[in-house]
Amino acid sequence: MRTVLDHGYLKLVEVWGSDERIIEAARMSTNKGFKGWGSVEAPGDEKLLGFLYTHKHMTPFEMAGLTVEVQAPIFVIREWQRHRTQSFNEMSARYTPLPDVNYVPTLERVMAQTGASKQSAAADGVPRLSEVWARSFLDQLVAVYAHTQDEYKEALANGVPKELARLVLPVGRYSRMRASANLRNWLSFLALRLDEAAQWEIRQYATVLSDLVSEHFPRTWKLFTDEA
Amino acid sequence: MRTVLDHGYLKLVEVWGSDERIIEAARMSTNKGFKGWGSVEAPGDEKLLGFLYTHKHMTPFEMAGLTVEVQAPIFVIREWQRHRTQSFNEMSARYTPLPDVNYVPTLERVMAQTGASKQSAAADGVPRLSEVWARSFLDQLVAVYAHTQDEYKEALANGVPKELARLVLPVGRYSRMRASANLRNWLSFLALRLDEAAQWEIRQYATVLSDLVSEHFPRTWKLFTDEA
Amino acid sequence: MRTVLDHGYLKLVEVWGSDERIIEAARMSTNKGFKGWGSVEAPGDEKLLGFLYTHKHMTPFEMAGLTVEVQAPIFVIREWQRHRTQSFNEMSARYTPLPDVNYVPTLERVMAQTGASKQSAAADGVPRLSEVWARSFLDQLVAVYAHTQDEYKEALANGVPKELARLVLPVGRYSRMRASANLRNWLSFLALRLDEAAQWEIRQYATVLSDLVSEHFPRTWKLFTDEA
Amino acid sequence: MRTVLDHGYLKLVEVWGSDERIIEAARMSTNKGFKGWGSVEAPGDEKLLGFLYTHKHMTPFEMAGLTVEVQAPIFVIREWQRHRTQSFNEMSARYTPLPDVNYVPTLERVMAQTGASKQSAAADGVPRLSEVWARSFLDQLVAVYAHTQDEYKEALANGVPKELARLVLPVGRYSRMRASANLRNWLSFLALRLDEAAQWEIRQYATVLSDLVSEHFPRTWKLFTDEA
Repeated sequence: MRTVLDHGYLKLVEVWGSDERIIEAARMSTNKGFKGWGSVEAPGDEKLLGFLYTHKHMTPFEMAGLTVEVQAPIFVIREWQRHRTQSFNEMSARYTPLPDVNYVPTLERVMAQTGASKQSAAADGVPRLSEVWARSFLDQLVAVYAHTQDEYKEALANGVPKELARLVLPVGRYSRMRASANLRNWLSFLALRLDEAAQWEIRQYATVLSDLVSEHFPRTWKLFTDEA
Repeated sequence: MRTVLDHGYLKLVEVWGSDERIIEAARMSTNKGFKGWGSVEAPGDEKLLGFLYTHKHMTPFEMAGLTVEVQAPIFVIREWQRHRTQSFNEMSARYTPLPDVNYVPTLERVMAQTGASKQSAAADGVPRLSEVWARSFLDQLVAVYAHTQDEYKEALANGVPKELARLVLPVGRYSRMRASANLRNWLSFLALRLDEAAQWEIRQYATVLSDLVSEHFPRTWKLFTDEA
Repeated sequence: MRTVLDHGYLKLVEVWGSDERIIEAARMSTNKGFKGWGSVEAPGDEKLLGFLYTHKHMTPFEMAGLTVEVQAPIFVIREWQRHRTQSFNEMSARYTPLPDVNYVPTLERVMAQTGASKQSAAADGVPRLSEVWARSFLDQLVAVYAHTQDEYKEALANGVPKELARLVLPVGRYSRMRASANLRNWLSFLALRLDEAAQWEIRQYATVLSDLVSEHFPRTWKLFTDEA
Repeated sequence: MRTVLDHGYLKLVEVWGSDERIIEAARMSTNKGFKGWGSVEAPGDEKLLGFLYTHKHMTPFEMAGLTVEVQAPIFVIREWQRHRTQSFNEMSARYTPLPDVNYVPTLERVMAQTGASKQSAAADGVPRLSEVWARSFLDQLVAVYAHTQDEYKEALANGVPKELARLVLPVGRYSRMRASANLRNWLSFLALRLDEAAQWEIRQYATVLSDLVSEHFPRTWKLFTDEA
């Protein structure tokens, strides 16, 4: 299990397939199997793997995959679940009270405007964020979490249905899910979510996920990073 | 455009295909085309349509579809987007401030516990919700919306990046999206979301959507309702 | 590896997940984990598994899966690949000469008309197949295979591009592929392909596949067969 | 309807959405609508369309689509149906005798070895195809078609089940289907099937399809071709 953000985590539940299995699957087309990795002097099947990847013959990369468990703020989960080729099982506030766990960014994160938000702020005529206002925002955020949790708890205690009591919960609240996908789809996820156009928070999860990919599929991962 | 809940809506953007087109597609398998609907005495292609439907030959129902625009609370959109065979484009709080539009259920809705929540509440040893507490919950909900909107507005005005300022927004806030799918997938959506196990709020959207389906695909719709 | 038809096979390449993992994933929604299987007197998590299955909460069954390798006649592969949620890597006659392996049904299979074909033949005014004509068909089939293989081999030897030389090959010829899917999708495949409306040949593959499912996911398999 | 190869065709059944609708969908994210196309001096929404396309924000391109009907040789249909995001309804030789329509390439096509097959032939030590052998192959191909059709017809007349009689039919035989997909998926199809690594035959279908796309979605098509 690896910690992400202040209270989130990403842990590997299961991995299947391997770089070798990808080669075997690709070799179905030519009626051959995995022959072996080579050396620098005499490269072997890594050449085929590279050919597949650079020519976008991606179906062999569907013959491997990973299942992970993730705790992340709702707004991150919302972005994540737009990847429609993944399988999800998420905690449901209709059936269980959401734990009182909330995301509070660091001061540095709030101040460090990324290219996109800086540009957009300037275009809207909004002043550059001062440290005073950044601290003020974080204080108010903490207060909102505390206040809405009080309301939530009271509503539940008084018999308001869980599915309605949750209306007060902010999107900074953590939820939890399992996500499963084949390697081809995880690579697409990473291509979008490691990109600096992605929101910083989901990039932190993508970074941890990429460690898992690089550990279990080192040769595929090398191709991915060579291309980027 | 049809109003749903207090501030939501569902409007048809586009429809393609028809009951006839579904028949034509089904007739590809036997190398024939659409012959005509019959009468009560001499039923025609509605018999084939019924055969397809009851024997779960669903691919012909992929040859038609609808695109709609929806304004719905975030918790409804979250449930909706779990339907991974649909296409979505949603308003993004990273790029635009979310309008100050929030869902407040009616008193009747809060009091009318559905089978599922009643059962679950009893199991948890929670008291039956009184009208006093229901009114209190609604007052607090309105207050939370007002308070978080103040914080949100201030944060944006002071230069907090939109993508972080949104952390305070509750899941009862409205968002907006376009959703597109083929008819087969809309029927799956309706089967799950018209069911009384679905949360009441998303059922209101499903009901309006089913009006669109019944208007544009009357014969398919008849099969769907005959089965249910 | 299990033999199927005269020269086909189906072998397990990989399995991931388990009945327990399915329960764990389902329990994400209520924030609990796998508790244990029970006994006849005190059933445990098998009750939840049954609930999921009969109420069509199928996403937890996406958290497990199988990859298999299959050698099957082209007409079987064509039916198989209509299952669009599976991943495939197939031998390609553009890149490698297809081995001279061909499907010849048994006399019994040719004579034993299934409900569907018997009915359809009668409707078309076709005589009931006699054993003489059945034997004659099998002789001609063998002759067609031999003849087209001669033409194929000659064309390849003379430099006709593989991708065109293959035009003469009949759909009774064997091809080979790997197929991978999650358990939910394999169950859909089995529901359609074990059904007696499915062609007898693909049903033989489905039967072998169902042995794999029952061996690796015994509790899920029990639910599937209880329902059928 | 447009003729393709010797006896194939591709015809438009239905189109939905438009370049404007794609813009409208994209503007959901910023809460704006379609504003208008510009001029060379003052470009309008074509700039946004270009931004979407080059930054791979492809979901708005799912808000439009085409349904077509195609008659193509079985080996082409096999390649086509590997595109798993399309919907298909195909003529079934289990239910109807396949018409006696077969693909015979031109002499030029057989002689004009593409890069891939030339290379592969040389590597296998196969001689360069002479015109004499090319003519001989075409003669034999025609003979195989005639011979297998005789066997097929006789088998059907004698009561061999359609689903088995078909075993003799070669993959050069024509079949027919409807195919439906959203524009994003058709663009992926075209990217792969217009490429010169694709087999020449499917490229002919892709070319006709690209005419339909360029006619109905001229601005999206321009982006596609600018990139290629």
